[in-house]
Amino acid sequence: MEGRNRKFILELQKKARTRRESGLFVIDGPKMAGEVPADEAEDVYVTKEFLNSPHASDCARLLREKGYLTVTDAEMKQMSDTVTPQGILVVAKQRRIRGIKALIGDKEPLLLILETIQDPGNLGTILRAAEAAGVTGVIMNRETVDVYSPKVVRSTMGAVLRVPFLTVEDLGKCVEGLRAGAFTGGEPVRVLAAHLKGAVDYTAEDYCRPCAVMIGNESRGLSDELADLSDNRILIPMCGSVESLNAAMAATVIAFEAARQRRIKA
Amino acid sequence: MEGRNRKFILELQKKARTRRESGLFVIDGPKMAGEVPADEAEDVYVTKEFLNSPHASDCARLLREKGYLTVTDAEMKQMSDTVTPQGILVVAKQRRIRGIKALIGDKEPLLLILETIQDPGNLGTILRAAEAAGVTGVIMNRETVDVYSPKVVRSTMGAVLRVPFLTVEDLGKCVEGLRAGAFTGGEPVRVLAAHLKGAVDYTAEDYCRPCAVMIGNESRGLSDELADLSDNRILIPMCGSVESLNAAMAATVIAFEAARQRRIKA
Repeated sequence: MEGRNRKFILELQKKARTRRESGLFVIDGPKMAGEVPADEAEDVYVTKEFLNSPHASDCARLLREKGYLTVTDAEMKQMSDTVTPQGILVVAKQRRIRGIKALIGDKEPLLLILETIQDPGNLGTILRAAEAAGVTGVIMNRETVDVYSPKVVRSTMGAVLRVPFLTVEDLGKCVEGLRAGAFTGGEPVRVLAAHLKGAVDYTAEDYCRPCAVMIGNESRGLSDELADLSDNRILIPMCGSVESLNAAMAATVIAFEAARQRRIKA
Repeated sequence: MEGRNRKFILELQKKARTRRESGLFVIDGPKMAGEVPADEAEDVYVTKEFLNSPHASDCARLLREKGYLTVTDAEMKQMSDTVTPQGILVVAKQRRIRGIKALIGDKEPLLLILETIQDPGNLGTILRAAEAAGVTGVIMNRETVDVYSPKVVRSTMGAVLRVPFLTVEDLGKCVEGLRAGAFTGGEPVRVLAAHLKGAVDYTAEDYCRPCAVMIGNESRGLSDELADLSDNRILIPMCGSVESLNAAMAATVIAFEAARQRRIKA
């Protein structure tokens, strides 16, 4: 085997710091590897067995455009974070969007703002739902679990490669900027706080205009500091004795209501 | 310790057959234990430490009305399926609803029909979302993961104690009966199939009338046999390259659209 040091590749999967400092992350398995654009891949490792398997065709474009290094099964096991490696592992470049203005681009913003989401499965589900619902960008604070950790990457089912997202130092400043139109040529973005003590049914808001929905931590919900900065607090009305939906479900429900409204208007 | 054999209690957690034959299941931890009605509890086991903890007050009603047996920490560990037992374990009676007619009762039906859902977390999430959205009943086939397995019970966050549900031998017959009004005094229940090849945007359907939504297996989706029996196939339109939502997300999105429509009408 040539290419990178195996220990480094394992560290890329285990340590957020190694990922942050290198700007790289790991994609394991043919389904997602096949979706990596060649210019976002740094190294592609495959086993001989994989090259002869039906899954190789899923990754044909990447293997052709980027090239690959062949490794033994034992080497693949040493590099992979999963119990049963699937024969292909890609070291990929993190996508780096330069600031909120670039994240929004020229789209009619429908943003999700995530505060300190801790569960990798929740973050992955939120990114997947965000893509499906047509959310134009996701903004997270540093305290949110690393989006490039293997568990998040896996649970996004590929959305991590496609949904525009950004981690910011200060969500409060970001919200103030959004509301002031600082990133949208002066047009304000309406910022809504998903909140158990919401003032308004979430379906009563108009998501066709530029807007952002803030979702808080799984157990504590949104901090008062952030909720206080919002234009409005919205509530998902609940029947029965359910105290709250989990963060991923709440984000999904609101994002698909926004998608419904935007389809009607379109 | 008195009460039941510890081996039986462990088996209740590990084996669906033991649960089915005894009609019992296990609830572990104060949060859900506190919600068990005294007449649905068979045995309540607590550690001394638990009785002196702040959590004891969450279960005060159950402890008072039902009584309890005190066990040692070691005994609790032997009985519990979790790595860190929380000091209270309840052996509870399964709720047995007698047939679809009883499940529907006199409510305007909004049903979920689940075919072969395999992931305990998905089933738990679906029950929790169902309760929150005001779904009036959930019908499952025998191939769906056992709703009383510890993982499902935990992930329902208590909804397993409250949402009416029923397992049936033959979903096809059930669907035919619903559509023919066999359980609703002749009034037909409209049966919709959530389907990747749906004919109609799910938001175009009217969920205020009696209706049922069928959700299929996580990887295979709904079987053709069942989908063919539906009144209509509905689709959640998706942006980006997302192929499908997972079963729990799809059920959540549709259930909350139904809730939205029912709130508007009410």
